[in-house]
Amino acid sequence: MKDLLLKTHEQIAPYIHRTAILSSSQINDIAGCELYFKCENFQKMGAFKMRGATNALLNLTEEQRQKGVVTHSSGNFAQALSLAAKSIGIPAYIVMPSSAPEVKKEAVKGYGGQIIICEPTLEAREQTAAQVESEKGATFIHPSNDMDVILGQGTAAMELLEEHPDLTHLVTPVGGGGLLAGTALAAHYFGNNCQVIAGEPKNADDAYRSLISGRIETNETANTIADGLKTNLGHHNFPIIQKHVSKIVLVEEEEIVAALRLIYERMKIIVEPSSAVALAAVLKEKELFQQQKVGIIISGGNVDLSRLPF
Amino acid sequence: MKDLLLKTHEQIAPYIHRTAILSSSQINDIAGCELYFKCENFQKMGAFKMRGATNALLNLTEEQRQKGVVTHSSGNFAQALSLAAKSIGIPAYIVMPSSAPEVKKEAVKGYGGQIIICEPTLEAREQTAAQVESEKGATFIHPSNDMDVILGQGTAAMELLEEHPDLTHLVTPVGGGGLLAGTALAAHYFGNNCQVIAGEPKNADDAYRSLISGRIETNETANTIADGLKTNLGHHNFPIIQKHVSKIVLVEEEEIVAALRLIYERMKIIVEPSSAVALAAVLKEKELFQQQKVGIIISGGNVDLSRLPF
Repeated sequence: MKDLLLKTHEQIAPYIHRTAILSSSQINDIAGCELYFKCENFQKMGAFKMRGATNALLNLTEEQRQKGVVTHSSGNFAQALSLAAKSIGIPAYIVMPSSAPEVKKEAVKGYGGQIIICEPTLEAREQTAAQVESEKGATFIHPSNDMDVILGQGTAAMELLEEHPDLTHLVTPVGGGGLLAGTALAAHYFGNNCQVIAGEPKNADDAYRSLISGRIETNETANTIADGLKTNLGHHNFPIIQKHVSKIVLVEEEEIVAALRLIYERMKIIVEPSSAVALAAVLKEKELFQQQKVGIIISGGNVDLSRLPF
Repeated sequence: MKDLLLKTHEQIAPYIHRTAILSSSQINDIAGCELYFKCENFQKMGAFKMRGATNALLNLTEEQRQKGVVTHSSGNFAQALSLAAKSIGIPAYIVMPSSAPEVKKEAVKGYGGQIIICEPTLEAREQTAAQVESEKGATFIHPSNDMDVILGQGTAAMELLEEHPDLTHLVTPVGGGGLLAGTALAAHYFGNNCQVIAGEPKNADDAYRSLISGRIETNETANTIADGLKTNLGHHNFPIIQKHVSKIVLVEEEEIVAALRLIYERMKIIVEPSSAVALAAVLKEKELFQQQKVGIIISGGNVDLSRLPF
């Protein structure tokens, strides 16, 4: 697995940015520990998803590449798959619900993705994607429950650990589980006894409940500002998370907004609410991290600036 | 002068951040050149002013340090002088108009500055500062028209040229002239035939007019979103600007907002409207910079997020 992670990083490197790592002495003072933020908001198309999408595409056979790929997403993965496919020169079909905001559709089109609109239900999304698979012979790529995607997402933590090998903790948000599982693998194989902890919105606590029950739980409702974290874990990433993740910390909506504001005001960077969930978790359980060296993966920066919560 | 700049950088280095340099391939495509953004929005207290304030304080005599320093400012220099004075352990008296927003007063207090409120006129500010000088024996430090301040501001460009010695151009905004003059000195002594160009709001075009008339001009009104650029040049920085600055490019308010939006959306960083004036100038006179390597000093990132123009 260590070699596979190294190979993954090597093969995606020409297609991604090696993103900056930032610190803030003011936020360190508030948290009582040393924090290192891996800024995937500066990644191509604005999120870590570019890493996993690129890796999945590079692992396709020549025949698969010619027929293209399909996914269903209205979020960052739609843009990531579109841009990665464009960089490599293969067609990408993106199934989006009719309810998706115009700006998201425009972003996918801008990156060269071919949009197929469906009804805004999970069934319709899956059915439409299956139809594209059979009609075009396209390969379905899942946004988070896919080993190549998981390995790709792990490369952000690999780069962070390369610069700071002595991190005691790595903290990420958890939604579909791709970033968390990839980070957990990177920490296991490249960290020096580095614990992995996730932050999750209390209003979408499926991963937290999954770790307790031992099976993949879902959310009946998911009313959270961290709109990238409403999805569930999958059978590829859940076992990795069970094995290598120490803890999931639940955070309230107002704690997410407070952490988001800290990042904007003190670090002067633009991040998605989902990204603030990791810092919110650190601030909520300060005693866990006292005097430690903690890496945080800032997952992305694609936000509608006219709709900031402050 | 070259030695003086090197000594300046060496002596302030322990008190400042060596800030990140970011690039955006999307903005490069739009501009038609390679842009390197020196991110002084990540500087301590959020702006390049920390550099000049620190240098001015480090050059005081022991006796002057004991009696402290005074300035009049409601902007970034008030915070910079307060924080620099706190780091070095000397008192800072900040004369602020009664009209200054509460958040600005809180920021100065947070950095340990002692605020003296005056009437909101230039006369009252100068008079009150003079009174503090005579009563406390404090040394007056001007925000931009002071050689130690100018040298300190030049260190941002020195760091940028150290990483990218082959920059063909350096672009900054111009307000009081401290950053522009310091950058011009750095380019002259450390650049390789590197031209210095400034962006200035058309609605506060005093520096542009000063270069034409050969004397320091003032603005009767200065209705611009770039609120850090309403001030005039001074007799210390104007001769440097006359000698070493190639051109001042005037930009409209809507061009400033468009550049600001590009920086927020594509680079995912938070900058002040004043910082966007430099990019607006590059985008306005694209032909000047075609295929060139251009450094831009991002001056600062202290903004009221609830009052973004988009």
